[in-house]
Amino acid sequence: METTQVKAFGTISAEAPLKELIISRREPIADDVEIDILFCGVCHSDLHTARNDWGGTRYEAVPGHEIVGRITRVGSAVSKFKVGDLAGVGCIVDSCRTCSSCQQDLENYCIPGFTGTYNAADKHLGGHTFGGYAEKVVVHQHYVLSVPENLDPAAAAPLLCAGVTTWSPLKHWNINAGSTVAVVGLGGLGHMAVKLAKALGAHVTLFSRSANKVQDAIDLGADQVVISTDDAQMNAVQGTFDLIIDTVPYMHDINPYVTTLNISGTLVLVGYLGPLEPMLNSAPMVMGRKAVAGSVIGGIAETQEMLDFCGQHHIVSEIEIIKMQDINEAYERMLKSDVRYRFVIDMASLKAN
Amino acid sequence: METTQVKAFGTISAEAPLKELIISRREPIADDVEIDILFCGVCHSDLHTARNDWGGTRYEAVPGHEIVGRITRVGSAVSKFKVGDLAGVGCIVDSCRTCSSCQQDLENYCIPGFTGTYNAADKHLGGHTFGGYAEKVVVHQHYVLSVPENLDPAAAAPLLCAGVTTWSPLKHWNINAGSTVAVVGLGGLGHMAVKLAKALGAHVTLFSRSANKVQDAIDLGADQVVISTDDAQMNAVQGTFDLIIDTVPYMHDINPYVTTLNISGTLVLVGYLGPLEPMLNSAPMVMGRKAVAGSVIGGIAETQEMLDFCGQHHIVSEIEIIKMQDINEAYERMLKSDVRYRFVIDMASLKAN
Repeated sequence: METTQVKAFGTISAEAPLKELIISRREPIADDVEIDILFCGVCHSDLHTARNDWGGTRYEAVPGHEIVGRITRVGSAVSKFKVGDLAGVGCIVDSCRTCSSCQQDLENYCIPGFTGTYNAADKHLGGHTFGGYAEKVVVHQHYVLSVPENLDPAAAAPLLCAGVTTWSPLKHWNINAGSTVAVVGLGGLGHMAVKLAKALGAHVTLFSRSANKVQDAIDLGADQVVISTDDAQMNAVQGTFDLIIDTVPYMHDINPYVTTLNISGTLVLVGYLGPLEPMLNSAPMVMGRKAVAGSVIGGIAETQEMLDFCGQHHIVSEIEIIKMQDINEAYERMLKSDVRYRFVIDMASLKAN
Repeated sequence: METTQVKAFGTISAEAPLKELIISRREPIADDVEIDILFCGVCHSDLHTARNDWGGTRYEAVPGHEIVGRITRVGSAVSKFKVGDLAGVGCIVDSCRTCSSCQQDLENYCIPGFTGTYNAADKHLGGHTFGGYAEKVVVHQHYVLSVPENLDPAAAAPLLCAGVTTWSPLKHWNINAGSTVAVVGLGGLGHMAVKLAKALGAHVTLFSRSANKVQDAIDLGADQVVISTDDAQMNAVQGTFDLIIDTVPYMHDINPYVTTLNISGTLVLVGYLGPLEPMLNSAPMVMGRKAVAGSVIGGIAETQEMLDFCGQHHIVSEIEIIKMQDINEAYERMLKSDVRYRFVIDMASLKAN
């Protein structure tokens, strides 16, 4: 298969810093779209993959799955896009397209498993996929999104992962005007959950452990902030929420949040995979038909729906633009939660180097 | 308030056996229905309350909330019923009728709390409510159910608790023809879950730890039985079920069941209130949008819906009829799961004594 060499940024081991690399992209085939990457958001998964925090990282690893750019070439069978379009790529670049999930536009739950934008088996070139910390990317048109031209392309990049990860549960659990939504954690995911829930017409509460996020949350659209360590504030919201989107990416006690769910309400975990410790208590769940669920990113159709919604409502992420060469420092700052609320790489810095 | 003295069976302490007692029932007021009790099912909650297993039992305690009988008197405002009707009373004899739950026919989730048929504060007489182990009961018409005349009244009694407890989640999670449902545990609740799910058109699987329930489950309508201790059988049903109704009333590991849920599936606990140990693992929940939820009994309207459905489909419980005087022995047998699948007291034995 024909390939093109492009500049990228990645790492050769869990311990090594990210540095400039040369990777291969396939020449576009019939259904492919080639995108000149303008901006790429920096997700916590990028860091975890680079450092092999979850195991299984294949090196060289090139992260990045919040990609926005301009289409430079399209294959002969491409009908959805044309050269010059502003396009996006999220966490998924392929799936089986035949299983019950794919048939329902839930490629994120593809039964044989979707192909991740990075560090997944590459069906075309062998080896593994390389992400958006690169000059270009080539993706099957089904997994390419149309990015509204009225949005700042840099600030739109995090919509491709952080945006749809919070949008999908908001839609699945039927949030609309009059719903009561709470968000746990105000980071990359949490700040998008606040913005999207508010734009859908919900009454939005942020749960936070620290008072220093109150003003930010209000500025982002939250109707109120509940300090989760304050018993009086927690007591005041018992039995309140139709949906709680819990974006916290590490082990934490969800029991205090479960009791703040309304009858038939759901707490959905979007950031944490692992044992629920301290043990989840089923008593308030049984006595109030409350649920604890999980959700991961979203399907392609709902990603497009979310982008269109963001175009209509002028919603983008709060971002800090960095140069590609500053990614290692940015990772260190992410580990300290020192980012409001998403780093986005200006890929001009890589191309100019 | 005027009262009538009636014979009942109950206990004066956690340690004492149940024995004959005399209790007071109020004279029917405007909205009341007086029912001559023919049969009363024996629920595990009866035993737990009699023996103060959950704490908080008020003595004298008279259990029983699966009541079927004939209406003997109605108050001046009663329009739904007339003397001679076959009627039922389940777990709820009163609620606030004004909260958001009650307004949605979810009296089982009444925000200030519903009045239980036994051992709850009695709003009329003071003291606490007495259940169906008695000659008569007097209940506000809103909480009285119409029992189809074509059903065996003894075998219909357990529908009032075991039936609606499994019916409510089947309806809430939209089970219908083509759905895949699994049931954990084949006792009073589980055998009703199998029958009702099957009658709704679902493909029904029973999870069992022992092979000796296979034939019973098939006879009750299950399409298959999966022995949960057999790895090969468990592997064969990964990612299968839209809904799992878990009726097990004690602490147990639900993780092996969660992974057998289909994408977007729900495991609903209807029997166990307490910490989920071993710890619930959120990873398969996040990666498959799976949920763990709880549910308790059902609302009055859905109880009537279930009874009407059972009338149409000729569904009743599998029962063993006992005399009131044999209740203490029946409790001992229940503790050994030596009942297929519900004891029902023939109240003629109390009246004749």
